Amino acid sequence: MTTYSYDRLHQFALNLFIKIGCSRNQAIEAANVLLSADLRGVDSHGVARLMGYLQLYEKKRINTKPKLSVIHETPSTALVDGDAGIGLVSGPYAMRLAIAKAKNVGTGWVAVKNSNHYGIAGYHAMMALKEDCIGISMTNASPLVAPTFAKERLLGTNPISIAIPAGEEPPFVADMATTTAANGKLEILQRKNESAPLGWLQDKEGRPTQAARGVVEGGALLPLGGDRDHGSHKGFILGSVVDILSGVLSGANYGPWVPPFVSFLNPDPNPVGKGIGHFFGALRVDAFRPELEFKNHMDIWIQRFKNAKPINETNKVIIPGEPESKMEHMRRKKGIPLIDNVVKDLQLLSEQYQVKF
Amino acid sequence: MTTYSYDRLHQFALNLFIKIGCSRNQAIEAANVLLSADLRGVDSHGVARLMGYLQLYEKKRINTKPKLSVIHETPSTALVDGDAGIGLVSGPYAMRLAIAKAKNVGTGWVAVKNSNHYGIAGYHAMMALKEDCIGISMTNASPLVAPTFAKERLLGTNPISIAIPAGEEPPFVADMATTTAANGKLEILQRKNESAPLGWLQDKEGRPTQAARGVVEGGALLPLGGDRDHGSHKGFILGSVVDILSGVLSGANYGPWVPPFVSFLNPDPNPVGKGIGHFFGALRVDAFRPELEFKNHMDIWIQRFKNAKPINETNKVIIPGEPESKMEHMRRKKGIPLIDNVVKDLQLLSEQYQVKF
Repeated sequence: MTTYSYDRLHQFALNLFIKIGCSRNQAIEAANVLLSADLRGVDSHGVARLMGYLQLYEKKRINTKPKLSVIHETPSTALVDGDAGIGLVSGPYAMRLAIAKAKNVGTGWVAVKNSNHYGIAGYHAMMALKEDCIGISMTNASPLVAPTFAKERLLGTNPISIAIPAGEEPPFVADMATTTAANGKLEILQRKNESAPLGWLQDKEGRPTQAARGVVEGGALLPLGGDRDHGSHKGFILGSVVDILSGVLSGANYGPWVPPFVSFLNPDPNPVGKGIGHFFGALRVDAFRPELEFKNHMDIWIQRFKNAKPINETNKVIIPGEPESKMEHMRRKKGIPLIDNVVKDLQLLSEQYQVKF
Repeated sequence: MTTYSYDRLHQFALNLFIKIGCSRNQAIEAANVLLSADLRGVDSHGVARLMGYLQLYEKKRINTKPKLSVIHETPSTALVDGDAGIGLVSGPYAMRLAIAKAKNVGTGWVAVKNSNHYGIAGYHAMMALKEDCIGISMTNASPLVAPTFAKERLLGTNPISIAIPAGEEPPFVADMATTTAANGKLEILQRKNESAPLGWLQDKEGRPTQAARGVVEGGALLPLGGDRDHGSHKGFILGSVVDILSGVLSGANYGPWVPPFVSFLNPDPNPVGKGIGHFFGALRVDAFRPELEFKNHMDIWIQRFKNAKPINETNKVIIPGEPESKMEHMRRKKGIPLIDNVVKDLQLLSEQYQVKF
């Protein structure tokens, strides 16, 4: 484990994106999104993913000079073509558009097709906060999840994020995969050679398994709930809604056709759409209720839930986004710790692309 | 168990609503919403609830002559005051408004305060389907659910429904409580004297329990996921988002302040808002993508998921809304079976209110 400053990692990511052809503005934006994951403690989605993006670039699956465009729009909606660029760039573009529409007509909703992985869902949703909007962000992703009763992987971990402004309290920021556990948690167990709780995954025949390598060996992650008795059909609903809004509504791929993020797997030769898809929303708080009133009541909500009687005094109720916000504060000051494998990847990229790390 | 025709039960509910002072139009609307639950097999939310509504009326907690009004609006949003009427009436009113806004500017979003229980979430969302819109509906409800790590009940089962039109296939209609299991399922186990799976509820000290009477005895339902290892913090997020959009954004009560549906419990003497709250949305499909293209791809999506390789040939993947749609078809023809306790309740109401059953 080595610790690096935010600035150093940001500069490295930025230079790397410029080196492969991104404009300076797009490179800054992409580095901002990526590093926000490292700051917030979502280590799987930060600079650890740089190697993945670069490998997709090498396979010519990423356009580093995308011309983002609005294909169709109404006062409160838009459809954006990501031009095969990375979602780290099309995401913020689409979210800005959603916010602009919210300013005009109360809410804005933007679907994006022809995109690639967009980093942490939360970054985009949180863009709405400083504009006193509620922000929503979701994306489909490579199929790793089996619907309830199936032994095929048909959905991604399809995350949803929602960011809600408050007054004195830090904002409510939720960012969750629609599976029982995110794939990153399984990878940690694999490295430690530990087994997973029942309900996280199934083997390739669809049997419950605790083997952390189960997904790698052809099994599947399970929708939130884990099994039918515990409501996995509801997790399946959530993942499906994200897939439909991000993929079917936008004209991107969906379900098993979503192109894999890993470069060693090839996209389906007969796609049903273009690239992967995202969906964003912004709701202006004062399009419903005076802003100060709303924020005051959000503070009451947050305080009431934070102070709920705990089962054990040591574990109090966690307001979504609070641990991440504390983590960000700490890592901005004390730096971002990276595990050795990630450091090695960054050094490899540094040599290969002749970019100083 | 006795079976009654749709028309007979509808007429009875309608006459009862008229008897307590509803206008004919509002009574028809309320009966439509209520009976749609019986038709779709959500027996807990249909005529079985009539007694509950009438008891609230007797406690003067329901205004049977509500003047519904728009307090604030923008081109894509509105805030509605339900004037202490039942949600069976303010729900459809708000949803029509959302659809009208979607026709004008692409999407419409309506929050409702000062309302009461609104029946099944799915009825309202499904109103969008015939207008080629995606419909969304959610509501907060009496506190029965403990946040992860808490032993207090701070959230309702806070359901979300989303209805998505398709082409040849029946629409995708999801309608789910944000808990592992709905309270109705526990009530069935109580009647049968059976125990519940672990992960459905906890006792009043916050310990896992399988006692189906656990909630009645001061325990709590658990958010979808059941425990922290299985993602209950995500179920908590979902329930919270429903509470915030329905309650905090609208100016209704939220969290533990939501007035109880049962008439033998009194509302909090120091409420933070008015009544309970709902939140509705309508997205015009062709505000994003040509309607026929969208519907064609929804058909492909549905067929692909329906035909996923099953773990057991006997249990195929269920498309949300399909079982309910089959049930509705059957019950419209063959009638709606009611358990003896419900029949007894309806007979009591018939005598008490002098309305022919």
